[in-house]
Parts: sequence; C-alpha cells; structure tokens
Amino acid sequence: MTSPDRVAVLGCGLVGTSIAMAVARAGGDVVGFDTHAAVLAAASARSGLKPAGDVAEAVDGASVAFVCTPVPAIADVVLAALAADPAVVVTDAGSVKVSIVDAVVAAAGEVAGRFVGGHPMGGSERSGPDGASASIIDDAVWVLTPTSATDPDAVGVVQGWVERSGANPVRMEPEAHDRVVAVVSHLPQVAATALMNLAAREEEGQPETLLLAAGGFRDLTRLAASDPHLWAGILSSNRDELVRAVDLYADELASLRDLVAGGDEPGVERTMAAATEERRRLTAKPQVRTGVAILQVGIDDRPGVLAELTAAFGERDVNIEDIQLVHSPEGGRGSVHVTVAAGDADRAVEGLAVHSFEAVRIA
Amino acid sequence: MTSPDRVAVLGCGLVGTSIAMAVARAGGDVVGFDTHAAVLAAASARSGLKPAGDVAEAVDGASVAFVCTPVPAIADVVLAALAADPAVVVTDAGSVKVSIVDAVVAAAGEVAGRFVGGHPMGGSERSGPDGASASIIDDAVWVLTPTSATDPDAVGVVQGWVERSGANPVRMEPEAHDRVVAVVSHLPQVAATALMNLAAREEEGQPETLLLAAGGFRDLTRLAASDPHLWAGILSSNRDELVRAVDLYADELASLRDLVAGGDEPGVERTMAAATEERRRLTAKPQVRTGVAILQVGIDDRPGVLAELTAAFGERDVNIEDIQLVHSPEGGRGSVHVTVAAGDADRAVEGLAVHSFEAVRIA
Repeated sequence: MTSPDRVAVLGCGLVGTSIAMAVARAGGDVVGFDTHAAVLAAASARSGLKPAGDVAEAVDGASVAFVCTPVPAIADVVLAALAADPAVVVTDAGSVKVSIVDAVVAAAGEVAGRFVGGHPMGGSERSGPDGASASIIDDAVWVLTPTSATDPDAVGVVQGWVERSGANPVRMEPEAHDRVVAVVSHLPQVAATALMNLAAREEEGQPETLLLAAGGFRDLTRLAASDPHLWAGILSSNRDELVRAVDLYADELASLRDLVAGGDEPGVERTMAAATEERRRLTAKPQVRTGVAILQVGIDDRPGVLAELTAAFGERDVNIEDIQLVHSPEGGRGSVHVTVAAGDADRAVEGLAVHSFEAVRIA
Repeated sequence: MTSPDRVAVLGCGLVGTSIAMAVARAGGDVVGFDTHAAVLAAASARSGLKPAGDVAEAVDGASVAFVCTPVPAIADVVLAALAADPAVVVTDAGSVKVSIVDAVVAAAGEVAGRFVGGHPMGGSERSGPDGASASIIDDAVWVLTPTSATDPDAVGVVQGWVERSGANPVRMEPEAHDRVVAVVSHLPQVAATALMNLAAREEEGQPETLLLAAGGFRDLTRLAASDPHLWAGILSSNRDELVRAVDLYADELASLRDLVAGGDEPGVERTMAAATEERRRLTAKPQVRTGVAILQVGIDDRPGVLAELTAAFGERDVNIEDIQLVHSPEGGRGSVHVTVAAGDADRAVEGLAVHSFEAVRIA
C-alpha cells in the first residue's frame, strides 16, 4: 500500500540526505538506502531517515522515490525503483538530464511514465551526508523535466514534494536544462579553472603575479576551489553541451580580443557596455531589480568588526543584498563592498557614519 | 624652494583625490590641479587640497607630484611637471607602465631620472572626486617601476610618500607590471564580459538561462558591472600584454575543452585538482596560509540577520577571512559562505549553534 507521506531516498550522500532532511521537516516519513553501509548509517544519524536493506525495501509503499546517486548509477537505480512498486513515482537529482531520461525510457518503455527527471539546483561544494542540510533545498530552483510520455499525475506528486520541501519547481525540457546548466554552471567552472591554472603558471616566471591579484581575480577563480572529482564527473556527463558552451565562450573571447588587438577602443567599449547592462540586471534579486548601490566601507581586520558593520545596516533597517570582503594582499586592513537596494544607500551611509565607518558609494 | 611636506596632485579624479586625502591624513600639504574647473572644485571640497591655476603653480615648491590623469594624458603632464620645478620628483598612477615610462624617457632624456612610474592597485569601479576615499589607498599594493636610469633619491622620495599614505610599495620592472596586470586584472575583466554577453545571448533563445544562474555565475560576472568607458581605455592601453594573456587563456580553455570532448575524465580531474590547490593557497591572506575552512550557514533574508551571524563569530573571537552571500534565485532565504582559519572552524560552528544558526563545513 502506498502511503502519501512515505518517501524513499536512494543514494544518501549530500544531496540525498539534504532532501531527506527537508522532506522530514515537511512531515514526510523517509526510508533510505545506500550501497555503502557507513554512508547509510551516517545519513540516518544526521537526518533521522529509516535505513532499508535494499532498494525494494526502501521503495515499498512509498509515494515517491528520490534517486540521488552519482550520475553514472542513476538510470539503473531508477529502473530498480520503478520495478519495486507498481505505484511508486520516481525522480532523480542528477545535474544532467538528457542521458538519464533517455536511458530510463529506452529500458522501461511505458513504465517510464512514472519517472520524472529532476535537478535541485542548491548543492554544495562538499559531498557526503555529514555536509547535508535542509538549507541547501530552501528556495532553491528545482528543475523538473517531464516529457510528453510522462504521466501528469506523477509530475503532480513530485512537484508537490518539491514544494513541501521548500524549493521552487521549474519545468523545462531535458535538452533545455542541459544546455542552460552548461552555460551558467559548467562553463563558469571551466573558466575559473583555466584562469587559476594560467595565473599559477605565470607565477612561476613572475613571482609577484598573485600578490597583485585583487578582488576581481578572487571572484573569477573562487569556483576553482570546488571538488575536482565531483566536477570532473559532472562536466564529463554533459560533454556535448559543455563543449558547445566552451566553443561559444571562446568565440566571445576571440571577438573581444580582436577588437583590442585591432585598436578598436569604441568597439571594446560597446562590448563591455552591453555586458555591464546585463550584469546590473542580474545583480539584484528578482524582487529588488529596481536597482542597487554598492558601498565600499573600510574596516580593520579583527574579530567582531563585521558584526559592528552589519549591525549598522540592521539598525537602519537596510537589507544587505550582497557583501564581499576585499582584503589587502598584505593584511592588516581591508574593505568591504556591500550591495544594497539603491533607495537604501543614503540611509545605510548615515547609519555607518554613526558607528565611525566611512562608506563610499562606488556603483 | 622645495618643501618636504608639500605635494602636488595633477588630475583630481577618484584616484588623485583619494591620494590627496591619504597624503593630507599623513600630514602632507596638498596643492592640486585639474583641467576641469568643476572637478578641481569638487576635489578641493572633498579632500581639502588647495586648488592651483595650472601645472606649474601646483608643482612649484612641491617635493613630489602625483600625476593621476587618464592614461593617454599622463606622459605630457609628467613632462610639464618635470619642467616646472628642477627639484620636484614626479610619479604617476596609470594602470599601465611601459608606454608611459618609454614616452617620458624619450622626451625628457636625463631629466626623466626624476620620474618614477607608479600604480596604486586600490582603485574602485567608480570615477570622479566624489567617490574618493583614503581607504582606497589603505594597505593597497602600490607598484613602483624605477629603471636603471631613475635617480635613487627620487625613488626614495616617492616610496616615502607611498608608505606615509598607508600603502605597501612593491618594486617591479615596467614590463613585468604590465604583464602581471594583464593576467590578474585585465584578463578577468575580459573573461567576465565575455561570459555575461554569452549568457545574455543564450537567454534570447532560452528564457530560463539567468533563472538558473546561481552563485558561481554571479562570481564570474561581477566584474562585468564595471565602467565600460574606463575599462575600454585601460584594456586598449595594455594591448600587447592583454592579447598575450587572452591567447594563453584561450589555450588553457581549449586544453580543458579537449579533455572533456575526448572523454578523458581523469585528465579533466587532474586539471581541476591543480586549480583547486592553487585557489586554496590564494583564499587565505598571506598570514593565514596555513589553511582555511569554508562554512555554509543558512540565513533568512531580512535586515539584521548578518549582524547576528557575524556577532556569533566575534563572540568566539573568530576572524572572518571571507564572506559570500548565496541568494536563492527566488529570494526569501539564502545562505552565506564564510571562510575562517581552519583551526577556528569548530569554535565558529559552536558559536553559531548558540544563536540557532546551522553551519555546515563545506571545504
């Protein structure tokens, strides 16, 4: 008998355990399975999920099964879950969709109507149940990729759990999902990796290279600190779309490079102005897209200084949209760039002045 | 008569006025000149510098003149300053060095011994005296590029003022400076611009593109919000080194792209692992390079929450090395990635728990 509150999680790493925690918080009754007994035990300890002895036991009676294994294993586990209970709806959390959806449809035929491809876009640079948190799911975009062959009731069941867990379901075609994540998620990883490796190579001949690397370089390379094994798997699993995205990126770079090489300064400026406009649209969250201001505030580099700084914003009821520390390369003092809604900027500067923080609006 | 505390600032935009403020704070007596009367008046109002009627009047009796005009005008103003007073030492604040140093030496001959090329690496995305602040200079790396033809006493005078103004002088060859900034400053600008323009173009065919753009994409494109006119000038003035840097970057990208295209997942992982190691070295400031931890903390999106969060770190005497807000695309809730010294991570997590913040160590 399927119970509407019963949920199975198959694969109990960071994402699976985080989903288990978010579902449990929403009143779900979670049973989990992982082929690694130690991982399953840790996931149970962290999330309270009930450990099962195999896929069939975990899925039996569940309304929905979340398959959260590494990408290469997903299709097989989905098929096993579909076979284990004729009523269960199955979804997954893989960061690519076409290859998984195609594999399930090819192997399961009509039964694949009960499978809905999914991708919660929260995530984390870490892996394993100890890094899990329901907060990874909170308000994250959770892409669902039903096809024309998917049972609409199955989509409804998955979407209901996505919403109950605190995320925002967004429906897309599997192909569209893979194309978009190639550009906005996988390509940035490649771009950051390439820049970091280039600078490291340059430093061999020029030891001051990273001494002169300031906030901009830090921004561009932060992603390069992510887990290389996890990411090598993700990039490989979206090969064709990623290669397309890198090639388009190389074209954009080449066109800007040619403008610089040709001395076409107005052309360079037009290209940069187009990017500036787009980036300013993106800076604000959707609900504050009316405009933002960036304040630069000088700070001492000591424990507690950020607490005083952020308290000054809170006192004036100004929400901090974004904050970035800009350390001086030699330490000692630094500055903070704080993004606030444009209409709050003056109030924030006044509030900071009361606490002897000098703030300069730089954008 | 040269007065040791008398300083001239020629070109009173953001950088010139910021230098005037830092020098005045250190006891300097600043006289300024700008060809735009309104800019000069604003700089005087902001920094207290004494306005002069022309270059000669500003330089007369000064121990050092800081030339802070846009790059195309620098060499001519340096020559005028050198001619105005036979004892004055002249430096500049241009973000490229070879073309300026070469032009001054070619035109001034032996007199160029009193010119020391310079580049304060603080700066800001904004321009004009109203954006000026001494905090832009605080602890910034300030590159000085004397050559074998430069008078050592002149270098001493400039270095003395750089130190008094609160910055850290770093000596480099002009060629080395231009090569390094091409890689760590100008190339990131190009890389961010190209990625933002690519994503905007993709969005025309795929409206969900930017909806799925999360923290990583924001990091990679933040620089694209900088002033396009200012940056088009900077990029054009370092043309050869920038073209070299973009070409090397394209090679790095192509090599990673080919590993992905060829299905060489171990090769992709090795390339990413090299970048990961380098980026983690960079994450910490030099004095805490013994290792850092990154904590992910879930937060509500409301005024004051960051003050509570940062206070929790301060209470446990944990210094925040870096902090990044990770907004969910739909707003409402988000999380913060906080970098602390590795040895402080456990204490920080305990301190956060007392205030009901759930922190997960993700790196």
